[in-house]
Amino acid sequence: MLDPYGLLRVVKPKGALPQAADVLDPSLPGRDDEMVIDVDHLNIDAASFRQIEKQEGGDASRIAEAVSTIVRSRGKMHNPVTGSGGMLIGRVREIGPAHPGKAKLKIGDRIATLVSLTLTPLSLDRIDAVHPETDRVDVRGHAILFATGVYAKLPADLPDTLALAALDVCGAPAHVARMTKSGSRVLVIGAGKSGSLCCAQAKRSGATRVVVADLQPAPGQRLVEAGLCHGAFGADATRPVDFLNAAKAANDGKLYDLVVSCTTAPATEMSAILCCRDGGCVLFFSMATSFTAAALGAEGVGKDAALYIGNGYAPGHAELTLDLVRSEAGLRSLWEERFAGKTR
Amino acid sequence: MLDPYGLLRVVKPKGALPQAADVLDPSLPGRDDEMVIDVDHLNIDAASFRQIEKQEGGDASRIAEAVSTIVRSRGKMHNPVTGSGGMLIGRVREIGPAHPGKAKLKIGDRIATLVSLTLTPLSLDRIDAVHPETDRVDVRGHAILFATGVYAKLPADLPDTLALAALDVCGAPAHVARMTKSGSRVLVIGAGKSGSLCCAQAKRSGATRVVVADLQPAPGQRLVEAGLCHGAFGADATRPVDFLNAAKAANDGKLYDLVVSCTTAPATEMSAILCCRDGGCVLFFSMATSFTAAALGAEGVGKDAALYIGNGYAPGHAELTLDLVRSEAGLRSLWEERFAGKTR
Repeated sequence: MLDPYGLLRVVKPKGALPQAADVLDPSLPGRDDEMVIDVDHLNIDAASFRQIEKQEGGDASRIAEAVSTIVRSRGKMHNPVTGSGGMLIGRVREIGPAHPGKAKLKIGDRIATLVSLTLTPLSLDRIDAVHPETDRVDVRGHAILFATGVYAKLPADLPDTLALAALDVCGAPAHVARMTKSGSRVLVIGAGKSGSLCCAQAKRSGATRVVVADLQPAPGQRLVEAGLCHGAFGADATRPVDFLNAAKAANDGKLYDLVVSCTTAPATEMSAILCCRDGGCVLFFSMATSFTAAALGAEGVGKDAALYIGNGYAPGHAELTLDLVRSEAGLRSLWEERFAGKTR
Repeated sequence: MLDPYGLLRVVKPKGALPQAADVLDPSLPGRDDEMVIDVDHLNIDAASFRQIEKQEGGDASRIAEAVSTIVRSRGKMHNPVTGSGGMLIGRVREIGPAHPGKAKLKIGDRIATLVSLTLTPLSLDRIDAVHPETDRVDVRGHAILFATGVYAKLPADLPDTLALAALDVCGAPAHVARMTKSGSRVLVIGAGKSGSLCCAQAKRSGATRVVVADLQPAPGQRLVEAGLCHGAFGADATRPVDFLNAAKAANDGKLYDLVVSCTTAPATEMSAILCCRDGGCVLFFSMATSFTAAALGAEGVGKDAALYIGNGYAPGHAELTLDLVRSEAGLRSLWEERFAGKTR
């Protein structure tokens, strides 16, 4: 029986899709149109990892136990507080005869799933290590990928950890590529993983002024030095009026055509909206974004901006992002230092 | 001292904008750039009203007490559960010399505020009546409007209650007008107030197939009979796979170019996303929308759709919506029957 959306894996509530479900069933064997993956690493969504890290006082073994508890109780790594997941890296164990990857993959191929862990049935045998600097957890276990689940074969010319970090947020630069007009002014909030990709892509797509903001000036300044953007400033995006003043000062006193929110901090919607010009766009990629805060906030200050929910998918997003990391020397060296970790 | 965003009205936390604040100070007198309004009616956001109604078992006096408690503790009608507000109707009591409405309004003019109650300082002396059929509460009290706060003078040719109902959701049809391409197929989820406006506007903007969905077939069927759309069906949008099948059956087996979510029900994001074709748009106006459910949901099924947060503001939105109610005979008679109530 074919089950392209994974409805048969939903334990409760019945009739929900896997992402909305409280509990999934990750048990074996896989169905005819499913792929079974031996899981090596989880790359936890940044907002989720920060929440767990804070809750557990930064202690690695307690973080591991918290991850294990979530997966055991829900059948997936779906953080109940933040609502977000992440993605995984692993090896193909079995491919059902009706799975669309049947002709393209072979047993043992290393792949990354590009669908969220919030809808991926997962069972963990053990957790080997927690890497807070990369939001990564090394594990042993298995996961199920449905026929509609997007995945990417890992490239041979990039370290796994680098590819994983890039693929985890590959929707963001792909949408920036679509939305950046030549000659435009772009503000990226958050100088982390997705923020640095968005800066590099905005510049590549012809923006004439790309500015990055973070809580402190240093992380953004490093992106400027790496050649990924033109300017940087430090300001607290939860204080929108101060933030607006700093953002304008970094852009000849002007507002921005496109604002991309890549911060993990909650309550930053108004800073993004205030910095956007009337007729411009705000692209929210932060998983900490509140729908009502954004919708009502723009109305509250009479701002005529198009507000986008950052869709994690776009055709070709994996290739675009891997190519960005591969070909932007400044980005690659920054990422190797920051995210590649020590394991491989 | 000028205070265009109302920062001086924020009691806590300091530095937040009024919408994000926990508590506002609605005390008199008004500042130089503020307007003071004698408040007659609150039109509570539908998601908020339903939540309070359910919590209070549908009892009118308990609903009144719940509204009163929220306003007393927060200094604004900002539902802490749903995060949403609504808007108000009243009469101009005082206009500060630096308020932009100074030259356009006179004392006693009847106006509606078009900014959310979530950021409007409000103090209630008493609640006179609760009207669950229109989500409306008759009150006596005062509110403060900041210099950036959008408002509309009430038209002389429409009953107040009808104008209030229309202005409350006037962002939705204004954005549908922008996003509907001639010849497109549009699905509107929710056959209520904003849903009926969106149907009428989509048809007016040249959509060749406009279909409305609601939990039961009857409300949508009435919109078809009123000439506001071409088709209607009844289905539960919290069950996305069943909903998708019904939506396709109502559209020659096809997906839609534009899907507009106007439902008050939570957990309907996936139905909206599944019904949209690749390359199409989903416009979320439901205040019950979960940002993460939409972002991760589209990624989870590999759907290449542009996902929009419905901005409550667009230039000219009040005029467009009042004109729609005024000139679409079918819409007006339906609304008069449904929302105008008995008072005026």
